[in-house]
Amino acid sequence: MKTYLECYPCFLRQALDASRFAAADESQQLRVMQQALTLLQNLNPAASPPEIAWQIHRLVREEVASSDPYQAAKERSTRQSLALYPQLKALVSESDDPLGTALRLSIAGNIIDLGVQELHEDLWENVERVLSQPYAVDHETELRAALASVDQVLFLADNAGETVFDRVLIEELPLPVTYVVKGHPILNDATRTDALAAGLDSCSNIIDNGSDAPGTVFKRCSAEFMAEFERSALVIAKGQANYETLSTAGEKVFCLLQVKCPVIGLDIGAPVGSIIIRNSKT
Amino acid sequence: MKTYLECYPCFLRQALDASRFAAADESQQLRVMQQALTLLQNLNPAASPPEIAWQIHRLVREEVASSDPYQAAKERSTRQSLALYPQLKALVSESDDPLGTALRLSIAGNIIDLGVQELHEDLWENVERVLSQPYAVDHETELRAALASVDQVLFLADNAGETVFDRVLIEELPLPVTYVVKGHPILNDATRTDALAAGLDSCSNIIDNGSDAPGTVFKRCSAEFMAEFERSALVIAKGQANYETLSTAGEKVFCLLQVKCPVIGLDIGAPVGSIIIRNSKT
Repeated sequence: MKTYLECYPCFLRQALDASRFAAADESQQLRVMQQALTLLQNLNPAASPPEIAWQIHRLVREEVASSDPYQAAKERSTRQSLALYPQLKALVSESDDPLGTALRLSIAGNIIDLGVQELHEDLWENVERVLSQPYAVDHETELRAALASVDQVLFLADNAGETVFDRVLIEELPLPVTYVVKGHPILNDATRTDALAAGLDSCSNIIDNGSDAPGTVFKRCSAEFMAEFERSALVIAKGQANYETLSTAGEKVFCLLQVKCPVIGLDIGAPVGSIIIRNSKT
Repeated sequence: MKTYLECYPCFLRQALDASRFAAADESQQLRVMQQALTLLQNLNPAASPPEIAWQIHRLVREEVASSDPYQAAKERSTRQSLALYPQLKALVSESDDPLGTALRLSIAGNIIDLGVQELHEDLWENVERVLSQPYAVDHETELRAALASVDQVLFLADNAGETVFDRVLIEELPLPVTYVVKGHPILNDATRTDALAAGLDSCSNIIDNGSDAPGTVFKRCSAEFMAEFERSALVIAKGQANYETLSTAGEKVFCLLQVKCPVIGLDIGAPVGSIIIRNSKT
């Protein structure tokens, strides 16, 4: 997905939010904003929003000299989600369609996102909503067919905490899963530490993509990850940033997400609040 | 009120919104955004938000060569408000406290604001809410005392359409009122044309402030207006931009507004959605 003009103000907001997450003082916040303005003036218009966000968050980390401003927030999200894990498992085991329910729960977990503006819903309300609402883009049948025809799944993670919801889905998948986290901290995206804290090692092989960009920006990923991606016959990609970077990546990719940003909503053709299973056929 | 860092993304959003209101094409929108970025880089940190907004909207008018991009929107707002006028008058005449009701209705009209992000409430729902909700800042007693002690009122208008709600208030005031509109179009702020369309000439003496900035930016106002302002013993100032520019203008000024912006809410100490009658004692 290209960067729209609507993304410009949002990048500035992200710069400010991230500065404050990193406990930047007033003068540091102002310097970050000034540098973000310069960055936006020299924007490559073909770059996807996660590529710009990568640059914005790097500015913040350099200004504040913090390698992971979101660490405490990520730990909190993981704890909150783990507390729900028994209830999530019960929802699946009591369901007439355990895989369908587990898919919805993984998408419910995508509400955990510190890159978007504040959300006015608690985690469990969000679970209940996502369990009953119709998909705005619904390629679930195609995804189930793909799951039945491959012998393993490459699963691209999104945020810490959401990882627990992904675990519930992965535990329902009848295939070996490789769970891909970020190579380095960016926003509240899950790293290996966050995936381990959520127990993903009990149900998947955890690897990282070598990158510190949100989503999956190929040119920032390691050769090892790229080889794994090329080799995979089925890729499940979680969250908005993976949609932004992989929405035309080919029919082996399925994006699972909640629409939390109106610009992504416009691109995908579904309003904010929608739930999506979308195949990336070009 | 100073310009906060939170205002930076909002200025960019306003630049884009205003470009589209002015029917700018894609390349014009991009040029406006680029110029807005340059403007923000060279910002005077002591300037109030309406002073920056004035510069932003001037960029748009120059790029699109339109003297009044909001003209059609203003005419629509005035028509919609005039359609409610009989019901608003009935609310006042049936009230146990006609002046109190008229004050609330004037504040209800302040919901009409094309400078803030979209609102999810229709005009009549908003009237009903404002009639019953408690003031978050309540200097109504002081305002009533001031009204009883002066022999005329200077009334600083805000937006087209809101003018009709102001008319309902002015018709309840037992004093001659001078109604001050903008000297030139800016956003959907009322000009003389808009005030006349709302019938303000039937209940007040309409003058303009000589300025094309939102709110009341003294250094952009005419000498004639400034003399009138100095001479007045009581000033009623409507809306957020007048709060931003007059919040410390002295105890003869009362700001009547709805809080629609979280940064103004922080400055004033009341959440978005609040209704306010606030004296500008420094």
